[in-house]
Amino acid sequence: MQDQPALRALDAHYQAMPPVAAMQLRIAGHDGDTLTLEAPLALHVNDKGCAFGGSLVSLMTLASWGLVTLHVQQAGLDADVFVADSEVRYLAPLFADLRAQARIAEDSAWGDFIATLRERGRARTTLVATVPLPDGGVATTLRARYVAIARKP
Amino acid sequence: MQDQPALRALDAHYQAMPPVAAMQLRIAGHDGDTLTLEAPLALHVNDKGCAFGGSLVSLMTLASWGLVTLHVQQAGLDADVFVADSEVRYLAPLFADLRAQARIAEDSAWGDFIATLRERGRARTTLVATVPLPDGGVATTLRARYVAIARKP
Repeated sequence: MQDQPALRALDAHYQAMPPVAAMQLRIAGHDGDTLTLEAPLALHVNDKGCAFGGSLVSLMTLASWGLVTLHVQQAGLDADVFVADSEVRYLAPLFADLRAQARIAEDSAWGDFIATLRERGRARTTLVATVPLPDGGVATTLRARYVAIARKP
Repeated sequence: MQDQPALRALDAHYQAMPPVAAMQLRIAGHDGDTLTLEAPLALHVNDKGCAFGGSLVSLMTLASWGLVTLHVQQAGLDADVFVADSEVRYLAPLFADLRAQARIAEDSAWGDFIATLRERGRARTTLVATVPLPDGGVATTLRARYVAIARKP
């Protein structure tokens, strides 16, 4: 996984951000449709012994941001990717290591997003991310909109 | 500010959570209606040189959570406070230290929340938080629902 150049570059991008480096996250999987990040519970524990909400949001936001960034790069485009807004639901406490998996929302499509970015230099898309519980349930969900803006050559 | 016992206890609560201690946040103000937290930009900078979205969400979520916790304690109640869901808008990049101010939402009231918690052992309320820009604009806003559940004596 980590030996793929695009994922190595993404990991370097993550680690270059001080608050993200402090999270000790790692890229745990990428198959084109999804990007999965993991981080150790010990570093992200709250006062109740379970995962801190801020860490869960950060991990879901970074997984979604990373998946958008990978798609932009795979299309041969150079753009900054920003999160515009997000909705998070905290469904159940997580007493295990953090794992966030991001994918595009059902009402969005990568083809439309990349075509719009190529034509107009700016495009918007919606991602969803979830943090699963060890037993198969869901700890948290995120739905977030991202904007990509082409860099001037 | 920090010499008030309730704020000292809240600060100790924050610092006892490893991911929060790593944020180097401090309680910058509390006047009953609002709670303000600050954190240094240098520790929360992203790849674009401005504040990382995950840090902004964490600070707004912690400020809101802290204000709910203070109100529960001031009412003489003992309850766990959880965030249930949140909506965040990223309006403008922040190139300065982070400052999040939380208050109760216009359609919620502390009196109702505390009375319900006292009567039923469980209550829900909505908080809003903002991160201002140095020039008077707004970097990010959060609207989040919190649930308090009385601890068994």
